[in-house]
Amino acid sequence: MRFFSDNAAPACQPVLDSAAAANALDTAYDGDAWSKRLDARFSELFETEVRTLWVPSGTAANCLALAAMCPPHGGVICHRDAHIQNDEGGAPEFYTHGAKLMLADGEGAKLTPDNVRAVADAIAADVHRVQPHAISITNATEYGLVYQPDEVAAIGALAKERGLGFHMDGARFANAVASAGCSAADVTWRAGVDALSFGFIKNGGMTAEALVFFRPELATDTLRRRKRAGLLLSKGRYLAAQLLAMVEGDVWLANARAANAGAALLARAANGRLVHPVQANEVFLRVTADEAAELRAKGFDFYDWGPGEARLVISWNQTEADIRPLAEAIGEL
Amino acid sequence: MRFFSDNAAPACQPVLDSAAAANALDTAYDGDAWSKRLDARFSELFETEVRTLWVPSGTAANCLALAAMCPPHGGVICHRDAHIQNDEGGAPEFYTHGAKLMLADGEGAKLTPDNVRAVADAIAADVHRVQPHAISITNATEYGLVYQPDEVAAIGALAKERGLGFHMDGARFANAVASAGCSAADVTWRAGVDALSFGFIKNGGMTAEALVFFRPELATDTLRRRKRAGLLLSKGRYLAAQLLAMVEGDVWLANARAANAGAALLARAANGRLVHPVQANEVFLRVTADEAAELRAKGFDFYDWGPGEARLVISWNQTEADIRPLAEAIGEL
Amino acid sequence: MRFFSDNAAPACQPVLDSAAAANALDTAYDGDAWSKRLDARFSELFETEVRTLWVPSGTAANCLALAAMCPPHGGVICHRDAHIQNDEGGAPEFYTHGAKLMLADGEGAKLTPDNVRAVADAIAADVHRVQPHAISITNATEYGLVYQPDEVAAIGALAKERGLGFHMDGARFANAVASAGCSAADVTWRAGVDALSFGFIKNGGMTAEALVFFRPELATDTLRRRKRAGLLLSKGRYLAAQLLAMVEGDVWLANARAANAGAALLARAANGRLVHPVQANEVFLRVTADEAAELRAKGFDFYDWGPGEARLVISWNQTEADIRPLAEAIGEL
Amino acid sequence: MRFFSDNAAPACQPVLDSAAAANALDTAYDGDAWSKRLDARFSELFETEVRTLWVPSGTAANCLALAAMCPPHGGVICHRDAHIQNDEGGAPEFYTHGAKLMLADGEGAKLTPDNVRAVADAIAADVHRVQPHAISITNATEYGLVYQPDEVAAIGALAKERGLGFHMDGARFANAVASAGCSAADVTWRAGVDALSFGFIKNGGMTAEALVFFRPELATDTLRRRKRAGLLLSKGRYLAAQLLAMVEGDVWLANARAANAGAALLARAANGRLVHPVQANEVFLRVTADEAAELRAKGFDFYDWGPGEARLVISWNQTEADIRPLAEAIGEL
Repeated sequence: MRFFSDNAAPACQPVLDSAAAANALDTAYDGDAWSKRLDARFSELFETEVRTLWVPSGTAANCLALAAMCPPHGGVICHRDAHIQNDEGGAPEFYTHGAKLMLADGEGAKLTPDNVRAVADAIAADVHRVQPHAISITNATEYGLVYQPDEVAAIGALAKERGLGFHMDGARFANAVASAGCSAADVTWRAGVDALSFGFIKNGGMTAEALVFFRPELATDTLRRRKRAGLLLSKGRYLAAQLLAMVEGDVWLANARAANAGAALLARAANGRLVHPVQANEVFLRVTADEAAELRAKGFDFYDWGPGEARLVISWNQTEADIRPLAEAIGEL
Repeated sequence: MRFFSDNAAPACQPVLDSAAAANALDTAYDGDAWSKRLDARFSELFETEVRTLWVPSGTAANCLALAAMCPPHGGVICHRDAHIQNDEGGAPEFYTHGAKLMLADGEGAKLTPDNVRAVADAIAADVHRVQPHAISITNATEYGLVYQPDEVAAIGALAKERGLGFHMDGARFANAVASAGCSAADVTWRAGVDALSFGFIKNGGMTAEALVFFRPELATDTLRRRKRAGLLLSKGRYLAAQLLAMVEGDVWLANARAANAGAALLARAANGRLVHPVQANEVFLRVTADEAAELRAKGFDFYDWGPGEARLVISWNQTEADIRPLAEAIGEL
Repeated sequence: MRFFSDNAAPACQPVLDSAAAANALDTAYDGDAWSKRLDARFSELFETEVRTLWVPSGTAANCLALAAMCPPHGGVICHRDAHIQNDEGGAPEFYTHGAKLMLADGEGAKLTPDNVRAVADAIAADVHRVQPHAISITNATEYGLVYQPDEVAAIGALAKERGLGFHMDGARFANAVASAGCSAADVTWRAGVDALSFGFIKNGGMTAEALVFFRPELATDTLRRRKRAGLLLSKGRYLAAQLLAMVEGDVWLANARAANAGAALLARAANGRLVHPVQANEVFLRVTADEAAELRAKGFDFYDWGPGEARLVISWNQTEADIRPLAEAIGEL
Repeated sequence: MRFFSDNAAPACQPVLDSAAAANALDTAYDGDAWSKRLDARFSELFETEVRTLWVPSGTAANCLALAAMCPPHGGVICHRDAHIQNDEGGAPEFYTHGAKLMLADGEGAKLTPDNVRAVADAIAADVHRVQPHAISITNATEYGLVYQPDEVAAIGALAKERGLGFHMDGARFANAVASAGCSAADVTWRAGVDALSFGFIKNGGMTAEALVFFRPELATDTLRRRKRAGLLLSKGRYLAAQLLAMVEGDVWLANARAANAGAALLARAANGRLVHPVQANEVFLRVTADEAAELRAKGFDFYDWGPGEARLVISWNQTEADIRPLAEAIGEL
């Protein structure tokens, strides 16, 4: 059984069905009926007027958002373990034409206003230093921690105070919302977030993520940047259809709850070995190399995550029956 | 009936089936079984060792190819009506970090060595002038003309003589090969082409194009550029599966032949009105505004293409029964 | 005697003296007394509030101006023979992160509103086409023609109507103003110009050009871009001092008048051979290869400018005694 | 008396004289007699064949060097307090089109192979992580420490082992060489350095730095990048003349020794307060806010450098008579 990541799981049936249903001639690019429904559908979900663009990857969503907030000569404050810093092959620098990522500390890859201030306050406001223009947080974080709405709002208030844009990388936004038990609105725009990379691919999607702008004016140039990046697929309806399927009937929440529940199951078995609290669908364990080998010998695959640690990620489609054997194997270590 | 473009047609059944079959857990990014078969499968098709990358758009394929051949301070010679110049929202400049497109003339958007030389020879070889580093041609051209292998080879020889890379934008490569009746190899690497944007989306695909490198070493950095552009989809297998379906059993050729045949049908009806010879699946007609209105009144949709011209594009799935009424309507003008 | 260009002549005495006078400790970068006087001094010259930055080259001035007006995904309309298109090694694309130069026709490299409209009107206002964001003209033009204030104003009105920025490359602005007999204000901001590359190096300066913003808010980010381009010299006072010397006592006009007079002298001798009217300090002659050789045999150096043409440029320091022998030699051809 | 920095001091007489002597017509750009002598003169100085380009700022030298070594998708390992990271307004990212600076630790801004390895070894060699392509060190460092040749050579060996380029930011290279008592060759190319930003402006120059390539092939594209950055001044001879004056008769060493001696004088007075050993011309003192105020009240100006620290920089032209009062004032604190 594979616990490497949730990013390679199958797509869920509603997504497959919806994509198949999109297989009829319609206007090209984003002029089709599916794409045109995105704004309304996501505005409903977020209880405010939003602009929503499909993109084929989370990296694309993140980087288009950053480019909308930060000029080439600016900087983006993020955690030093952020996905945008470590896992996107320099895409933020590509899309922003060389803006600088400014690395903050924070427990479990989670930022607080103090972490942000520590970075921002060290930067003299002169022409020699790159100035911060935005903050980017990941929710759930790279270590599976979840922001509560008030935690986001505290950063949002700081962003507003300093005139900084505020982006949320929500590659696992569904898991975060399912875990926090809040509304999608509470943890985003009501907390000051300007743009959200709303991830679906890890949560039962196929090839579509949503880039949601809570400040609709940010979408205007982004439409051009999306085109300029080769991301304006001519048959975009297949992507739009995936997104619509995920939000219809709250499939996104159901899938995320399933994955979170699986992780919780593991967490209970792994008590005492947890590197971080398990709040979403990722479990970081302290295991020796021998223990890791033992788990693998039993057929469980996962990534080592630094020395003495392992990362186990639960996908939306993994059932209790899939996970229980791993939980037991961990218990037996 | 819509004759706007072939870029919004449905996907063909083999593509749908193959994408559906890819809906099982596999390694992420391009580590899956489908992606791993691409090199071998396309090497077979091209009768030489090639490297093949899936990308989600033709613009992405074109621009990654250009970035592999041309430094930021260089230039790419192309036709002034080339898609990369007029229809990609500045993507070539984005991917190449500001290389310059150098615009050549040529009948029907088709280049000859003389057209290329006219551009290149006017550029002093000093540090003040941007120097050409590559040539890019479109086959079939933006006006539906098709290069014969010897025509490509003549440009390829010039490219080699001048030390220039040679890229073919093959958004409608299938239509071109079907029309020329040559092998895919003859009109590409045997004629000096270094990289091909091999289009499938317009020809019955869904969301996947192939970027084929005939100089395999060009692929190395391109893998990083693809990632850096947010184009390395985590579930790339859905894209790879589409490409494999298209080349399996020569679906790509069958689809292209069907579209070409439809265009030929129109061409016969439109004799005397043709702006360009009809060699692939595009038909450019001389029609007055009144005539265009008359066609539209009968239910045929298409783009005006400058004053007194109309563009009609036939898709792979349009049958003789679909097209005959249009042919007749044109005949009746 | 050398008539290649005015860009390699000696600096005039006031410039040398002023630079020498700046050789005392002062605040670094642009915090020194000289740099701080620029805004006031140039505001006086232009009869309105301007922001003025020193830069070490005309290319830098041009490209910073363009970057202030045009986003990476935009375009700049200019003449196809413009210096920014042909002689700056791709610097506009570098500074703008890949904006596109959109090439217009126009007699003698001079643009009219019609020339600009011919380019702009051909660009569909959709996401697939790069949209124009600015117009750039050169005054005096690359062929030595001079804009009258009303000619600039006609383009300025068009720029305003279309929401385009308006830049003037004034590498030979002094020659243009001296020739037009207008005020510096009339031919710039009063005619709708937003930014001027005010050239001094060709006109008796050493290593400093002025970038003048008539919309002061454009200067803000430009200060950061100047730094980011490595152009914020730590001893900027030597550059500021040069600019101040040039405007003090209208040295800039006196030098330009001298050069223009020399060109006029040649023009009279060359009557019948002139490719363009001589309005500033450049003379383009029709000469056969034999005639060019004859002139060179007599010790006169100059550039061939295409087949059957020669370019002769008069520098600020060339006297009638220097020029008369050339005038006579041309007369004797 | 000002001890802010050495970057605003007057130019020394040989530089002024040489620049003045360059005030005669000569070929434009870098075709003049002065520019053409650079390669030979610096090759002599470095006892090997080098290519040497003048540039108008240290930032320009650094960033052109980095762009020659690192592609847009790569990274450069440097100290987290490096000038390229903190004081160049994002210029490295501009010139490299978004390469990433990878920040290493190291006492006094000085790197060791271990510091470099700590960064490099944490980067998985996959497509998701930006890969290092170069190492950049500053000599003397941002805190005035000096590398011995063997220390540089140890990093050079690591660079070679890993296939990384090796750049030295020598804004105060003269001070470093004067301090180390080594040859310029020993601490650069013999120690594996590929490119040196050889600073003169802080050391008695006016507006010219030298970019020295020990791998001559790196100069080729750099000539184009220099042009493309607007740095190819048309009267480059004024810059070349400054460089020639500085190396003639070892003015560069004499000036640096003078500045170093001044710093040593302060260091002796400041014994016990030194934050870093004083090895070049910078002195970092532990002083309370009250003590700093006391020094300022006596007429000494300098920068605070974080809480409880002050930075004092000695310029080439400051004499013992200038410095002794400060030394005494420090002694009296």
